[in-house]
Amino acid sequence: MQLQHLLLLLAISLPLLDTTRAADPLPSWNESPTKRAVVSFVARVTREDSADFVPRSQRIAVFDNDGTLWSEQPMYVQLRFAIDRVKQLAPQHPEWQDREPFASLLKGDTNAALAGGEKAILDIVMASHAGMTINEFEELVNDWITTARHPQTKRRYTDMIYQPMLELLAYLRANGFKTFIVSGGGTEFMRPWSERVYGIPPEQVIGSSIKTRFELRDSKPVLVRLPELNFIDDQEGKPVGIHQHIGRRPIFAAGNSDGDLQMLQWTDAGKGPRFCVLVHHTDAKREWAYDRNSHIGRLDKALDDAAQRGWTKVNMQRDWGIIWPPSKNASHSK
Amino acid sequence: MQLQHLLLLLAISLPLLDTTRAADPLPSWNESPTKRAVVSFVARVTREDSADFVPRSQRIAVFDNDGTLWSEQPMYVQLRFAIDRVKQLAPQHPEWQDREPFASLLKGDTNAALAGGEKAILDIVMASHAGMTINEFEELVNDWITTARHPQTKRRYTDMIYQPMLELLAYLRANGFKTFIVSGGGTEFMRPWSERVYGIPPEQVIGSSIKTRFELRDSKPVLVRLPELNFIDDQEGKPVGIHQHIGRRPIFAAGNSDGDLQMLQWTDAGKGPRFCVLVHHTDAKREWAYDRNSHIGRLDKALDDAAQRGWTKVNMQRDWGIIWPPSKNASHSK
Repeated sequence: MQLQHLLLLLAISLPLLDTTRAADPLPSWNESPTKRAVVSFVARVTREDSADFVPRSQRIAVFDNDGTLWSEQPMYVQLRFAIDRVKQLAPQHPEWQDREPFASLLKGDTNAALAGGEKAILDIVMASHAGMTINEFEELVNDWITTARHPQTKRRYTDMIYQPMLELLAYLRANGFKTFIVSGGGTEFMRPWSERVYGIPPEQVIGSSIKTRFELRDSKPVLVRLPELNFIDDQEGKPVGIHQHIGRRPIFAAGNSDGDLQMLQWTDAGKGPRFCVLVHHTDAKREWAYDRNSHIGRLDKALDDAAQRGWTKVNMQRDWGIIWPPSKNASHSK
Repeated sequence: MQLQHLLLLLAISLPLLDTTRAADPLPSWNESPTKRAVVSFVARVTREDSADFVPRSQRIAVFDNDGTLWSEQPMYVQLRFAIDRVKQLAPQHPEWQDREPFASLLKGDTNAALAGGEKAILDIVMASHAGMTINEFEELVNDWITTARHPQTKRRYTDMIYQPMLELLAYLRANGFKTFIVSGGGTEFMRPWSERVYGIPPEQVIGSSIKTRFELRDSKPVLVRLPELNFIDDQEGKPVGIHQHIGRRPIFAAGNSDGDLQMLQWTDAGKGPRFCVLVHHTDAKREWAYDRNSHIGRLDKALDDAAQRGWTKVNMQRDWGIIWPPSKNASHSK
């Protein structure tokens, strides 16, 4: 190559390199050991001259949703959706006035309704999530998620996603990772907005599900949602869901509760470099502080495992400069 | 930009453009209405100024495997694997000598063994596919698929994939499509080799499956394959599998039998441009000729639907210049 051409190439590429060097891909993360650990792991697995180099196709990263990518207090967002839907459907179901958990729910006593435990929650979920086509359900979710607001923050739920985790997702993707959601929440509840909000396409969303059935209605094929559980993507279910859906073991996993323990164990036990991270809710002022004694997102056994196995812990109060994205409609704090 | 730099750029890019223009992305497809229909569809959905333009994220293409991407006669490859595995395990199972379908199988009378219908096949599949960890099973599949040969052609089964379909997969991917396998065959039977052979990564392989269970063995997490059906990805199951796994409707679907009918109907019924294609096995000389009366890959109802709905039919004899990739170890014909 002639010198003038070399100079031309350098002139083109040098400013690019400079920009790359200067831009912080994780601006909402405070300078801390947590941030340094993430950046160092990504460098180790992506540099071709690194002993820990991992080919692009094997850079699988999995993220829990509730409490890891968005807020889950004081009640899972999807349960809120289900309750709103039950209230909406109540006029068509006069029998609910005398039947639990619906009777309490319609009187506004959510605690009494949920006192029935798993059975009560299942009744509420089936009444609100089944009996329509997949397209009808998608529309219901879209309508709700764009209008409903959190009772305390008055924010839309999709404005209560964690800005630092958004940056982490984008940073991993920019480094050749394929990012997946692996959530106990419903697959069909997340997919309508996961691409818009997280940049994660529907085919990379793994969750719990009910069964669907193929039918021809007036020669038009539809998929109908049935009131029957298909899969619970929580605890021991998470590695099963990952295997069913992805078929290879992640090298990066992020969770925040005991529901994520097996996913973290499964990720950690693979050969080669691994990164397991637990989001620890330590910020009672800007979000919520909870762990071992919480009913929602209990973090107890996984906290012990994290210490034993050297998993990375995100201390939200210390590590995150902001929690939620700046919003025009609400203040930063709850 | 100075003239010399412009000339330099042109000198670099012109040969590239020329190559691109001249190269036929489907060289194993004869010039025929089928090939023209494929190329015209891809142009319609990928040109930004086209009324039928489809954004990249929605370019989902699904392919059946047996009989669509590789040969399925005179017996599904996976059943061959299962039978070989039963023979291998027989010394550890003296009780099989007197128990059908194993007794007939071990005497070499496959027809008598399969006379028990679905129940017999299920017994053979469970005996051969369950009871080990997912890693052990992957190893079994890898060992078998790299050594086993078709009794008539003496080719490896992965050398009996269809060269024109390989080109079609690559052509679609080059045009921004995401290609998926949607097969009645076992997910775990296809994933170990799908990326190497078809360029389709494990997370884009949807098939039938048995259940798996997460266990800690000596504190090491494993996933164990259970002798229990999880999902049958055939007929009405294919749209269900597509929805569970991908969460959006394909715009391109390829199949070859009545097992693919509902997948084609589901794809066809979406809004906007669609391409549904049926591979019709018409070449008794180079491969096999069969349709309405075949036990394997019966193509009857779907052939009627194709005519009614204007789906594209591949006439293998007329449309394909070669069937399987050139192989050093075997002749082209069976």
